[in-house]
Amino acid sequence: MGFSFQTHKKCSQTQARVGVWHTPHGLVETPRFMPVGTLATVKGLTPDQLQTTGAQMILANTYHLHLQPGETLIEKAGGLHPFMGWKGPILTDSGGFQVFSLSELRQIREIGVTFRSPRDGRIIELTPERSIQIQNALGADVIMAFDECPPGQADYATVKAATERTYRWLERCINAHQRPQDQALFGIVQGGIYPELRQSAVNGLIEFDLPGYAIGGVSVGEDPALVREIVQFTAPLLPPNKPRYLMGVGTYREMAMAIASGVDLFDCVIPTRFGRHGTALIRGERKNLKNAQFKEDFTPLDPECPCYTCQTFTRAYLNHLVRSQEMLGYILLSLHNVTELVRFTQRIREAIIGDRFVEEFGHWLS
Amino acid sequence: MGFSFQTHKKCSQTQARVGVWHTPHGLVETPRFMPVGTLATVKGLTPDQLQTTGAQMILANTYHLHLQPGETLIEKAGGLHPFMGWKGPILTDSGGFQVFSLSELRQIREIGVTFRSPRDGRIIELTPERSIQIQNALGADVIMAFDECPPGQADYATVKAATERTYRWLERCINAHQRPQDQALFGIVQGGIYPELRQSAVNGLIEFDLPGYAIGGVSVGEDPALVREIVQFTAPLLPPNKPRYLMGVGTYREMAMAIASGVDLFDCVIPTRFGRHGTALIRGERKNLKNAQFKEDFTPLDPECPCYTCQTFTRAYLNHLVRSQEMLGYILLSLHNVTELVRFTQRIREAIIGDRFVEEFGHWLS
Ligand SMILES: [Zn+2]
Ligand SMILES: [Zn+2]
Repeated sequence: MGFSFQTHKKCSQTQARVGVWHTPHGLVETPRFMPVGTLATVKGLTPDQLQTTGAQMILANTYHLHLQPGETLIEKAGGLHPFMGWKGPILTDSGGFQVFSLSELRQIREIGVTFRSPRDGRIIELTPERSIQIQNALGADVIMAFDECPPGQADYATVKAATERTYRWLERCINAHQRPQDQALFGIVQGGIYPELRQSAVNGLIEFDLPGYAIGGVSVGEDPALVREIVQFTAPLLPPNKPRYLMGVGTYREMAMAIASGVDLFDCVIPTRFGRHGTALIRGERKNLKNAQFKEDFTPLDPECPCYTCQTFTRAYLNHLVRSQEMLGYILLSLHNVTELVRFTQRIREAIIGDRFVEEFGHWLS
Repeated sequence: MGFSFQTHKKCSQTQARVGVWHTPHGLVETPRFMPVGTLATVKGLTPDQLQTTGAQMILANTYHLHLQPGETLIEKAGGLHPFMGWKGPILTDSGGFQVFSLSELRQIREIGVTFRSPRDGRIIELTPERSIQIQNALGADVIMAFDECPPGQADYATVKAATERTYRWLERCINAHQRPQDQALFGIVQGGIYPELRQSAVNGLIEFDLPGYAIGGVSVGEDPALVREIVQFTAPLLPPNKPRYLMGVGTYREMAMAIASGVDLFDCVIPTRFGRHGTALIRGERKNLKNAQFKEDFTPLDPECPCYTCQTFTRAYLNHLVRSQEMLGYILLSLHNVTELVRFTQRIREAIIGDRFVEEFGHWLS
């Protein structure tokens, strides 16, 4: 079973759209938020719990999995799906973002990037070919091209050079890819805050007629107002018959705005990271469950939320768990937060189907 | 709905027995291991996960809950059951064991015990009346009498005085108990390693015709060989028509031996504590999942275990999670370990029903 993407409905007032994407491990109904399982685990949640959140596709991080436990082990296990017990679709990133943002002693050359492993100090080389080889071994349904991600404040010349290198690296990724029948390779639009670089990046990418496209280099330190402009400019340039993925974005406002520009997929570590810090996401607001105001609050986090946490426990109990530093507090908040962000995109999807997107979600678009 | 206990089957070679115990929150089929939920959470497990382990009754700790979040809050929540989302039977201990073993600056008088709160430093007095008052507020199905627990190496005179005080305190507990119709108060046999003190403790307890009896002051630092002798001596002295609970014991050998002496119920923090340290209990053996031998072991922890962990994941994945200090590793190991200990008592129960207890579990009895 391969890949196919159909859009079924378009918003009459924006470029928002509803799609169904078939992958080798099942459907993804877009728009949809994808939770992040960095080390082949969405932190604190079992695959069964994860399924109840409505998540369909999840992410894993090539950089982290290469360092621990290594792609060879995961390949021996039969790939990420059997290794981590997740039966639905999985996407792996290329490792590029982490190499550029996290690692020390990196050296960028045309051949690729070398960096010092934070795990054991050895020098690791990551090239387009190596990234694809690792992702082929990990076996996710969707793999990402290895790109150069300049920082958000980088000047025009730096971003231009990185964008052109990303194009050359994409060609090497495509040539290195050994499993195009069961792993869809997405290209990534770089170009920073410069519309003409975003435009030329898109022009380069669409030459290859890839199964999907991502917008990268967004929310990487640039002026937040520019995030919106760049997404609004870039998303509509991408082929309408392919899924569009805005990388690393998972706030309500940015997702709603990006959906209005025609984006289909999102990912972000926020829901589980907030969960581990005792914070709940409720309809766009953050609530720190440790606060004394919740001590005697015998209501659910969100009475309308269908998640196990909201259906079973009170804020008072969550306050007690978080104050006592009980693992269950982090688990239950992560479960709710993932459900909340997936459900935000699900509710937008239903609104688009009924052509009520702007009516119902317009307050996120202004 | 009140309490009733029936024994349905007795072993022909030992004093082992199979019982069904009705409580206001459902059945407990004995013999059975009870997991410990110190702070109104069995660490790392949701109530739904806990139910899949086969656990029927669980424990919570009065001492810890009094300190955080306080019994007043839990009473306002409607009691422990709605507060923690566990629908099955719950037992609370009296707090005595923790006061005697954990707390600083304790002073023991006839009226009760004063100690310094490890949470905020204030001086707290715990008396038989106060313990029962707290347990009435917590609302568990079974509550325990407040007893004096001398250390395992205490001399005869000390243990004798503590045993006699425990008897006087029991009478005060019974008089203080406000909810005898829906909370069964168990008395506790003290007496240390001295059979004649155990005998006189039992004589005192059974005067009150309580709904159940516990053997306390076992595994508190005395010579392990004596644990067995004391349990073998004490259990058969207790009324056969009431449930018998051996407090704080949860190793395979000690549970099997105690069941052979007619004990019905056990509790221990081992399964979740081991889980949090990356250790699995498998058929009586401890395996540290961090060990390199499991790195490429693509088999389940125990192929015959029905738990979610064993049915879904390999040892290699658990090794990866534990090495990466991922919360999911601790969750999955705790889930397996609780299932394993509950299932050990379930399998003994089935063996007693088929009169194969000594045949199948004799290696634990020697
Ligand atoms: Zn919820
Ligand atoms: Zn298991």
